[in-house]
Amino acid sequence: MLKGRDLIALADLSKEEILYILDTAESMKEVLTRDIKKVPTLRGKTVVNLFFEPSTRTRTSFEMAGKRLSADVINFSPATSSLVKGETLKDTAKNIEAMGVDAAVVRHKASGACRYLSKVLSAPVINAGDGIHEHPTQGLLDLFTIREKKGGIEGLRVAIAGDIYHSRVARSDIHGLVKLGAQVMVAGPPTMIPPEIESMGVCVVPSVDEILGEVDVVIMLRIQMERQTSPLFPSMREYSRYFGLSMEKIKDGMAKDLLLMHPGPVNWGVELSPEMAYYSNNLILNQVTNGVAVRMAVLYAVIAG
Amino acid sequence: MLKGRDLIALADLSKEEILYILDTAESMKEVLTRDIKKVPTLRGKTVVNLFFEPSTRTRTSFEMAGKRLSADVINFSPATSSLVKGETLKDTAKNIEAMGVDAAVVRHKASGACRYLSKVLSAPVINAGDGIHEHPTQGLLDLFTIREKKGGIEGLRVAIAGDIYHSRVARSDIHGLVKLGAQVMVAGPPTMIPPEIESMGVCVVPSVDEILGEVDVVIMLRIQMERQTSPLFPSMREYSRYFGLSMEKIKDGMAKDLLLMHPGPVNWGVELSPEMAYYSNNLILNQVTNGVAVRMAVLYAVIAG
Amino acid sequence: MLKGRDLIALADLSKEEILYILDTAESMKEVLTRDIKKVPTLRGKTVVNLFFEPSTRTRTSFEMAGKRLSADVINFSPATSSLVKGETLKDTAKNIEAMGVDAAVVRHKASGACRYLSKVLSAPVINAGDGIHEHPTQGLLDLFTIREKKGGIEGLRVAIAGDIYHSRVARSDIHGLVKLGAQVMVAGPPTMIPPEIESMGVCVVPSVDEILGEVDVVIMLRIQMERQTSPLFPSMREYSRYFGLSMEKIKDGMAKDLLLMHPGPVNWGVELSPEMAYYSNNLILNQVTNGVAVRMAVLYAVIAG
Repeated sequence: MLKGRDLIALADLSKEEILYILDTAESMKEVLTRDIKKVPTLRGKTVVNLFFEPSTRTRTSFEMAGKRLSADVINFSPATSSLVKGETLKDTAKNIEAMGVDAAVVRHKASGACRYLSKVLSAPVINAGDGIHEHPTQGLLDLFTIREKKGGIEGLRVAIAGDIYHSRVARSDIHGLVKLGAQVMVAGPPTMIPPEIESMGVCVVPSVDEILGEVDVVIMLRIQMERQTSPLFPSMREYSRYFGLSMEKIKDGMAKDLLLMHPGPVNWGVELSPEMAYYSNNLILNQVTNGVAVRMAVLYAVIAG
Repeated sequence: MLKGRDLIALADLSKEEILYILDTAESMKEVLTRDIKKVPTLRGKTVVNLFFEPSTRTRTSFEMAGKRLSADVINFSPATSSLVKGETLKDTAKNIEAMGVDAAVVRHKASGACRYLSKVLSAPVINAGDGIHEHPTQGLLDLFTIREKKGGIEGLRVAIAGDIYHSRVARSDIHGLVKLGAQVMVAGPPTMIPPEIESMGVCVVPSVDEILGEVDVVIMLRIQMERQTSPLFPSMREYSRYFGLSMEKIKDGMAKDLLLMHPGPVNWGVELSPEMAYYSNNLILNQVTNGVAVRMAVLYAVIAG
Repeated sequence: MLKGRDLIALADLSKEEILYILDTAESMKEVLTRDIKKVPTLRGKTVVNLFFEPSTRTRTSFEMAGKRLSADVINFSPATSSLVKGETLKDTAKNIEAMGVDAAVVRHKASGACRYLSKVLSAPVINAGDGIHEHPTQGLLDLFTIREKKGGIEGLRVAIAGDIYHSRVARSDIHGLVKLGAQVMVAGPPTMIPPEIESMGVCVVPSVDEILGEVDVVIMLRIQMERQTSPLFPSMREYSRYFGLSMEKIKDGMAKDLLLMHPGPVNWGVELSPEMAYYSNNLILNQVTNGVAVRMAVLYAVIAG
């Protein structure tokens, strides 16, 4: 179904394709519970991690996913590369491909870099996050995590809160959730809400506090200091008070079954108050665990089908 | 015996546990002499090298040890990690663990960082050197190397010379040697001898020169410029003359069977004079070779038992 | 034939040894066309990439080559190594070897570093580029690529154009081509032609433009800004006009069957005009693909024979 195709954005996938990946990820998750967490599915295949931006969790997650499918995984890091000699992105990628890779996992700070590479490479390109565009495997693992807890996505009410504007995770989450029939609300400082976001099928609420009791899931986003060129809110303290989440707000909102998600890394004390680490419906580490299963499913789908 | 447990310090292990690891390492060393230096013992298991401090030999030694047991080994380096985004040590480690690792090998510049992580992680943590605290696998490989040459440790006289204060290797060696019944002497400039070191079961001698003829083994420590905040001795030349080891001193001390060890990397011309590289009882490279066998034994013991 | 030997320079190899590697590489290339691009030839063997200089393509190419032969491949990068503690090149290499490596692939900025290491190490050393000396596997993959297209090397006319002086690729190409019976011409600005280059068995032509119609292959070299301490030509624009290659020059020279090669990365607009990327006889990516097969052949030859 997806064999030989690129995975650049959840905007490109149909509901059926998304469900196919989620179902495949369920089988993969079962593999991870075994004593020997390894299957020979991609033996003799090579996956390259082309990471032009620093990352712990995504690169390692793809590396583990590839290795558990018995693929050879090659890490390419720009610091030790020909980029210092002035090589273009296209040439770097085409050279790596010419060595015989079966899929390229690409992270880049420029929105659109992955789409561009998907056009110049024959091998499938998997977007591992490009600028503020999309981070489709994060979107898929968020869908997987919600579905695992709730049994389905259709009809759920999901809030995404924080810096929507700079968040590739928010964009992938919105596309995935809307396609699977969830009702999505976004909240954050007005400077962080993209104009015409409603055209993506979501509604804007002024603050997540006011709707805590009405939603099933809240996805709190990371304040990404490293992506902001000028300050978009007055102070951390103010952000935390008006847009952060705390146990007090959850109690005030009578939102006791609320599922809490976050793409990580968390700025504790900013978008989440420190005690939220111990909240019983905190699914942050479940997301990380599910990420490996989802990435195994994606690698399997595009390489072996 | 050690399955599922952490290895933070030799101070924590009993004599029997240490001997169990050394015996296991003997079997592992036999594997390394085969044409195909690989066994399937840890197939489908994942070992992560969490190195927050630079290292050649220890990281590579653990990587080789893991691969020879057929484990998947993931290298995590802080330069390309979420640490640049301000993630805490705990969150970084818990995220990596949530991806499904079977053991974490941790090096950190802070004494106590490994103990701390062993409390927040469910997976076994193996200390690969934390600040000036301990470096237990180095201690074990030193014990292994001495036992291999001498047939046992009990009753041997071992001198450790140099910067005892800043040396995690010295602390692990002392705990291991004392537990196995060796008589341990430490020597070095007074500024480099920790107060109350005698409470660890060792005696202090003013200079290793005076006892060269009376000891079976001397472990020369590296002068670690990078750990000293203020100079602890007048000059390199003076250090070398009074605290370094040379062939002349060995002859003067009539110490012809003396075994020479050093944890590396050596500052030639400082703690060891250059001709010591060719000394017939120089075991420095034996230590390195044995390090792989000992780390295979440790990984096997904590993951598979 | 080459088992246990070093590969430091094509200057050291006989015609028969070169042909043996090229023939072995043909079998290896067949492996790369299979669905499962992996053979168990070097299972249980360890190859270490000791790269003291940044590189994308060569390091990755050796890593892929090793993995496709089922070897364990260890990447050593100086940034995270004991070199920051002042360890010597010899000690670093001997320590890595003592861990039990079966071959060391070495890149270093100093001409002669690989020869030096081959004398201090027992394991075979493969030169992956040392200063301006040689880059023998690049030479071999160039020979392989030409032979694949032309059926043989004997009697062919090959031009090498650009900065001959600073090019380790040129030196390896010249030795290999001359040994296999090609007629080799070198062209470039006079400041970039080493004195007495004719003693290597080549002739010097003032500009490649004048002989385009008379040669079968042109190998365009990269202008290596990073190796020049003072400017060796007036401007990029002038270099491009007089020493670069373009479609216009190829048409003017009536050189329509001319094979184009380049060791990469290309400075588009300098040694090659941008439209040359689409030239029908552009073999640059073929070279990259063949590089993996040639390196598999070399690793196989020196480790397993």
